[in-house]
Amino acid sequence: MNPLLSGEPASQRLTGALFTTETMQAIFCDRARVQAMLDFERALAVAQASVALIPASAAPAIAKQCDATLYDLGAIADATREAGNPAIPLVQALTARVAADGADAARFVHWGATSQDVMDTGLVLQLMKALHVIENDLARLSCALTALVQQHADTLLAGRTLLQQATPITFGLKAAGWLAAIDRHRCRIREMYPRIAVVQFGGAAGTLAALGDRGLSVAAALAEELRIVLPEIPWHAHRDRVAEVATTLGLLVGTLGKIACDVALLMQTEVAEAFEPAEPGRGGSSTMPHKRNPVSAAAVLAAATRVPGLVATMLSAMVQEHERGLGGWHAEWETLPEICLLAAGALAHTVQTIEGLEIDAARMTHNLELTGGLVLAEAVAMTLAHTMGKLRAHELVERACRLSMEQKKSLRHVLDADPEARVHLTAADLDRLLDPLNYTGQAQALIARVLAAHQA
Amino acid sequence: MNPLLSGEPASQRLTGALFTTETMQAIFCDRARVQAMLDFERALAVAQASVALIPASAAPAIAKQCDATLYDLGAIADATREAGNPAIPLVQALTARVAADGADAARFVHWGATSQDVMDTGLVLQLMKALHVIENDLARLSCALTALVQQHADTLLAGRTLLQQATPITFGLKAAGWLAAIDRHRCRIREMYPRIAVVQFGGAAGTLAALGDRGLSVAAALAEELRIVLPEIPWHAHRDRVAEVATTLGLLVGTLGKIACDVALLMQTEVAEAFEPAEPGRGGSSTMPHKRNPVSAAAVLAAATRVPGLVATMLSAMVQEHERGLGGWHAEWETLPEICLLAAGALAHTVQTIEGLEIDAARMTHNLELTGGLVLAEAVAMTLAHTMGKLRAHELVERACRLSMEQKKSLRHVLDADPEARVHLTAADLDRLLDPLNYTGQAQALIARVLAAHQA
Amino acid sequence: MNPLLSGEPASQRLTGALFTTETMQAIFCDRARVQAMLDFERALAVAQASVALIPASAAPAIAKQCDATLYDLGAIADATREAGNPAIPLVQALTARVAADGADAARFVHWGATSQDVMDTGLVLQLMKALHVIENDLARLSCALTALVQQHADTLLAGRTLLQQATPITFGLKAAGWLAAIDRHRCRIREMYPRIAVVQFGGAAGTLAALGDRGLSVAAALAEELRIVLPEIPWHAHRDRVAEVATTLGLLVGTLGKIACDVALLMQTEVAEAFEPAEPGRGGSSTMPHKRNPVSAAAVLAAATRVPGLVATMLSAMVQEHERGLGGWHAEWETLPEICLLAAGALAHTVQTIEGLEIDAARMTHNLELTGGLVLAEAVAMTLAHTMGKLRAHELVERACRLSMEQKKSLRHVLDADPEARVHLTAADLDRLLDPLNYTGQAQALIARVLAAHQA
Amino acid sequence: MNPLLSGEPASQRLTGALFTTETMQAIFCDRARVQAMLDFERALAVAQASVALIPASAAPAIAKQCDATLYDLGAIADATREAGNPAIPLVQALTARVAADGADAARFVHWGATSQDVMDTGLVLQLMKALHVIENDLARLSCALTALVQQHADTLLAGRTLLQQATPITFGLKAAGWLAAIDRHRCRIREMYPRIAVVQFGGAAGTLAALGDRGLSVAAALAEELRIVLPEIPWHAHRDRVAEVATTLGLLVGTLGKIACDVALLMQTEVAEAFEPAEPGRGGSSTMPHKRNPVSAAAVLAAATRVPGLVATMLSAMVQEHERGLGGWHAEWETLPEICLLAAGALAHTVQTIEGLEIDAARMTHNLELTGGLVLAEAVAMTLAHTMGKLRAHELVERACRLSMEQKKSLRHVLDADPEARVHLTAADLDRLLDPLNYTGQAQALIARVLAAHQA
Repeated sequence: MNPLLSGEPASQRLTGALFTTETMQAIFCDRARVQAMLDFERALAVAQASVALIPASAAPAIAKQCDATLYDLGAIADATREAGNPAIPLVQALTARVAADGADAARFVHWGATSQDVMDTGLVLQLMKALHVIENDLARLSCALTALVQQHADTLLAGRTLLQQATPITFGLKAAGWLAAIDRHRCRIREMYPRIAVVQFGGAAGTLAALGDRGLSVAAALAEELRIVLPEIPWHAHRDRVAEVATTLGLLVGTLGKIACDVALLMQTEVAEAFEPAEPGRGGSSTMPHKRNPVSAAAVLAAATRVPGLVATMLSAMVQEHERGLGGWHAEWETLPEICLLAAGALAHTVQTIEGLEIDAARMTHNLELTGGLVLAEAVAMTLAHTMGKLRAHELVERACRLSMEQKKSLRHVLDADPEARVHLTAADLDRLLDPLNYTGQAQALIARVLAAHQA
Repeated sequence: MNPLLSGEPASQRLTGALFTTETMQAIFCDRARVQAMLDFERALAVAQASVALIPASAAPAIAKQCDATLYDLGAIADATREAGNPAIPLVQALTARVAADGADAARFVHWGATSQDVMDTGLVLQLMKALHVIENDLARLSCALTALVQQHADTLLAGRTLLQQATPITFGLKAAGWLAAIDRHRCRIREMYPRIAVVQFGGAAGTLAALGDRGLSVAAALAEELRIVLPEIPWHAHRDRVAEVATTLGLLVGTLGKIACDVALLMQTEVAEAFEPAEPGRGGSSTMPHKRNPVSAAAVLAAATRVPGLVATMLSAMVQEHERGLGGWHAEWETLPEICLLAAGALAHTVQTIEGLEIDAARMTHNLELTGGLVLAEAVAMTLAHTMGKLRAHELVERACRLSMEQKKSLRHVLDADPEARVHLTAADLDRLLDPLNYTGQAQALIARVLAAHQA
Repeated sequence: MNPLLSGEPASQRLTGALFTTETMQAIFCDRARVQAMLDFERALAVAQASVALIPASAAPAIAKQCDATLYDLGAIADATREAGNPAIPLVQALTARVAADGADAARFVHWGATSQDVMDTGLVLQLMKALHVIENDLARLSCALTALVQQHADTLLAGRTLLQQATPITFGLKAAGWLAAIDRHRCRIREMYPRIAVVQFGGAAGTLAALGDRGLSVAAALAEELRIVLPEIPWHAHRDRVAEVATTLGLLVGTLGKIACDVALLMQTEVAEAFEPAEPGRGGSSTMPHKRNPVSAAAVLAAATRVPGLVATMLSAMVQEHERGLGGWHAEWETLPEICLLAAGALAHTVQTIEGLEIDAARMTHNLELTGGLVLAEAVAMTLAHTMGKLRAHELVERACRLSMEQKKSLRHVLDADPEARVHLTAADLDRLLDPLNYTGQAQALIARVLAAHQA
Repeated sequence: MNPLLSGEPASQRLTGALFTTETMQAIFCDRARVQAMLDFERALAVAQASVALIPASAAPAIAKQCDATLYDLGAIADATREAGNPAIPLVQALTARVAADGADAARFVHWGATSQDVMDTGLVLQLMKALHVIENDLARLSCALTALVQQHADTLLAGRTLLQQATPITFGLKAAGWLAAIDRHRCRIREMYPRIAVVQFGGAAGTLAALGDRGLSVAAALAEELRIVLPEIPWHAHRDRVAEVATTLGLLVGTLGKIACDVALLMQTEVAEAFEPAEPGRGGSSTMPHKRNPVSAAAVLAAATRVPGLVATMLSAMVQEHERGLGGWHAEWETLPEICLLAAGALAHTVQTIEGLEIDAARMTHNLELTGGLVLAEAVAMTLAHTMGKLRAHELVERACRLSMEQKKSLRHVLDADPEARVHLTAADLDRLLDPLNYTGQAQALIARVLAAHQA
């Protein structure tokens, strides 16, 4: 017996609660997939009646049965194995219901359409909903990031490169980098939208031949009914439209992973500069009472690990044969929804993290002092370079840094004792150069540029 | 509300019916995952009682509640989002049930274990079942392939390279190639087995510190209770064991994809040499009454398109931090089960296809004649090479092939008219050389080698 | 000794000749990478002189040494292993050359920049060239496809779905599908362009602190000098810009793979409807004189197999730590160039194939007749459906198809003998319905839509 | 002009110096690929002479020309584009050289072999060398790890899970985890070896038909001459053998990435517990004099990011058509060598890191004290659990941890002040429980198990 019949979920959605959202699960659950396909069948009947291809009475008779709650999903799943896709048994079940209702309309169900028309258009309808949710969450994230940027525009912390402290930055600058990236993703989604918001309708081999000379009129009416666009030509075996949804969300998840990575690294016991919002029961350990795990970061990083492989699958699957492919199309069915589910989940976690991010500015300052001034070595070197040349200055400071580390003395202390350095630098110079506040460069200007572009 | 609570499956299992089997779905459904985790908790209690770490009475009290049907999966899923993994709420629910039953044993639930101990060992238990099913199906496939090899050892057809007819082969030889590959996969699974059939048990950071000096005795008793092996050291952040299951199944699915590809190509309307078994309702079209689609090939090729990306995810996820990773481990939770589901589904389809494969030997012969003898050009060229040298012979025959194609005459006809060729080849030579039966080389000997190795 | 020193290419470029073009190899060879980095250093000096940050005389002195042919690439490669990136030894070598030339300018080389500024901006300069080549080749491909669409607008052939003949289409319609997809890719590249045509310049941790208060003026002048744009903020650890180049080319290669797959399938010995252009020595076999292998299709399909994994790498690599990443950035260095090389190679092969594609229209007609009319079963069924209802009509025609196949008689013959069918269809009806010319539906209208959109 | 002709390397090997080794580059450079193919041609001639299929004099005449330095690689590369693979022009060039030497032997060059026989066997010969190098480096790594384990068996540091300090471990235990994983990889390579150390020899379509009835004798002699094994049947389109090399190295690189990740995290400025070996010029920054970047970790992590996508390509490429595939085989040519290059490079970096790893045991102790005892919360909780029950104990300690963090007081201080805790725990208890030395559990026993298994 098919597990769907037994009321037992057949897959691993226990863990899905961590990786995605209920909203997105509702958009991509089996019931919703079936409903989207029925939406196509309903709209097709309405469109065909509107151009008098089928009797006016057939449309409402068909529409009446286009309600997913009327169907036994388990039975359709069972039949899918032999039929090769769920559209065939669904159309059979729909036809049977229309016929059972005494309607002569049964003969006009799915008129002139092919399985892929139903499934692809259904998918597009689901994607419209999914992208709407994602765009809303991105707007919310942008908003939260803007606040964070503004609030911490001059909160000092160590800039880190290759996991080593480099030179000081401000937390606002770091968050501005996040914000600018998120805004680019919003732009990408807007640009992609017209390429995916299209109906699929071509019939058996993409010619709409079964509809005689009214194929295009029906197609236009169908698109209008579904409030999406009629593309130039059916795209059954040209999958760049759906693959682009995958790549666009793949890029987004990459950025979300980067943000989660930053937060998780800041949250390390030894760094402790920023934290995911705390809530009772959140991020505890089954055995260690003191643990406060970065739960959202874990979920987002998992998504960032999983989505690239799924995107690769969508790209591999693009090589589809002739007018409709064998296997490539089928490979998309669960892959693209999975990408949407993971992207939405990662996004929701990021919103939650950013909206509730706890910052320990004191610890940031403390950590900036960990190296005894080494983090400002570049400031000293650049100043010396003006008089000594860059290379010589670099060497002098490099040597001072080495001494500082070996002798566990501050850079200030070492430089004070270095006659060559003291030729060029007064104590006041050193005071100024070794204060991180004086070495954040264009941080404020860069923040202002990002905020200006964001508001544009 | 979590979809699991509403009895509505949250994922796209409608299509799962095509891609996997009910047996494998039952092994990897949420209920089974929870049961496997409870099997760990039960065995842990039994093991700890056996070394007197916990009271003897605690074990049965805990074991009594280790039945997955007692738990509300939706509630556990809901709690997972905050907890960060499903083991935490499951252990809480288990503890609550033991306590509610009046048992003092509640204090000993999950004693000294960490979430990953439960989840990883639970996964191993599921994998044991999955690999058992896969090995059985592989044995059945080997058996069916052996029969096919024997039956068609001398059924002639065109060998094809780069999608062009090359030289004749026999269908038995083609099937022997399939069989030899399947046998190699069986060998790989056997070799991998001892590395994955291991318990995970290390406690918080892998030292079993919470169990004092009895950590290893408990671990050994636990492994014995679960009939798997105690590894040298916990492997929380070393994922080569689970990743190897992924790569091993990935290799298998690649071969299944290759077989499906061959069958689908043979089944093309223009080739029509072999067919997936026909059954009423199987592989029909929603619009074209004459269609007989290669449904199993589609499902297998979809798996072969999807699994590589999932394997890449498992490999990417291996970079896990310190004693337990952040995100990498989480990325495995749905990925490895998905690989198992797809591999099992692809395998079941292949068994069905091979056991019922229809061969049209007459059409094979017919197609072998399509080129008017060109498919035997090499036979002629090799014979001429003995007297003319390989290069000159190649050129002569290449020219004859070109003429044959341009003039749409058989190669025999062209060679008959070629004075240089006729110097070296009599009419009887040409009769012999242009009969595909005489140009199957070592096909029989190679088949014999494969069958001998198979039986070894 | 480093292989570069020995004049021996260290990698497998023997095969590169098949997979990419010399133009693209010239853009991405080591010498060109070094030149692009030197272009950055030159422009930086010019920009800094222009805002009087460095002496006016320093710029030409530095610029003079910014010629890649002056440098020993082998030595730079050797030093890269310890330095961690090639920018460090390159800047050292450049500085040494400037100093050796007697110039005081040596102290101003690379002033205030970090290694990633050089390497990323250098990469952008290379990408600008690569995208220019790709856009030109796409324009040429569009043009060739347009001609193909127009020429074969009504050349009949079998539409094929799931590798089975479905219903008739025209070759122009098939090519129109290719054209529409290529035009979408051109649009994607145009939209992406502004996000990648940007300078990278942030200094050690992205604040430009080493340049005091003139960081942004230098940055603006630098961008202008390089004729690219100054972004809002440095993007050292935000890799969506470069990853998007990967995904955009990945989508393109998917479509090229689909076209190659179609051509290769049409070129099969048993189908023989279309062929890659023939040239002496092209696609021969080392042993079979008659072979004409689809060489370009092989190369393109190889690219379509390789690029998805490389795109996944670019997406995985997006998770970069803090201000500059560890490993993720490094993973891009060879991956993105490889994607460009493969995309350009696949595109060049496709241009060659489409421009010289040989069509055998007679064979297309012949193959359309292979099924004895089954390929028009839908036409009959749809007509019968008007009077009998779709389901009953489908069943009647399905039965007729089965009989036709079992008895190896034409569909016409079977339908003639079917009393129920003959109630609804006259002989003239059957003549009309079974002529593929009458069943291409909206092929012409769809072609017209694609051409109109193409010209828009 | 082909870049190879100009002496200019066509690819990005400038960076290769960081990612791979010169030894491995020498194994996989173009010259070596050609030599490996010539080794096949030489051995084939010898084998055929040994069974008297060709004249005895032909073998040395052919062998004499089987030296890669005699050939113009640029010319072969150029011809590859049209020929479709490099074996065809190489065989032509070899034949021409044999002929030019006056040898009648020219007619027997490449006798009965197909391009893929040469290329696949050549690849196997290269892989034999590559695996030999990798096995040697793995042995060396195992050895270095063993020393590290023994040396630091009781060096205390914080165990970290999800990037948070969890409970104490010893550095020897951490290294033992690395060692055990490396030993598993050595075992996998040994098991894989017999499946890849095989000759490829099947002729045009795998039947060896061109060799009449001596095909298998030649094949056996050929394998013996090359000191590899004759498999049951040619494997032209069954790629599990080569794909398994990819997956096996992929698993290895995953573990190396995990080790690099650990080292890089330990090397963070704020952690500073372990360091890659320092050398002059190693890991410096072009702008920051104080930087000591984890250069090897960057290279290894880049490999761990890149290899999964390349492995996915090898798996995707397994779906090869009929007797020899179109595109899939070609996709392997550069992919598998790339995996070998990256694996060898990552391994060499890891050997260097482990052999020279600097440990700061004092800092490890210092960091273990950072949390004021929280890292021993589990120790307290487990002890309390014996009397209070696990859940209640967990809650008490969780509350104490919260207070400790909020009030920035040590856990000892808080527990001292907690009346409920003091009911169960004396001051001496607390002293004992809060000493990390007393809470490393079975670390020593686990280390002993790993070392014992290693020596076995």
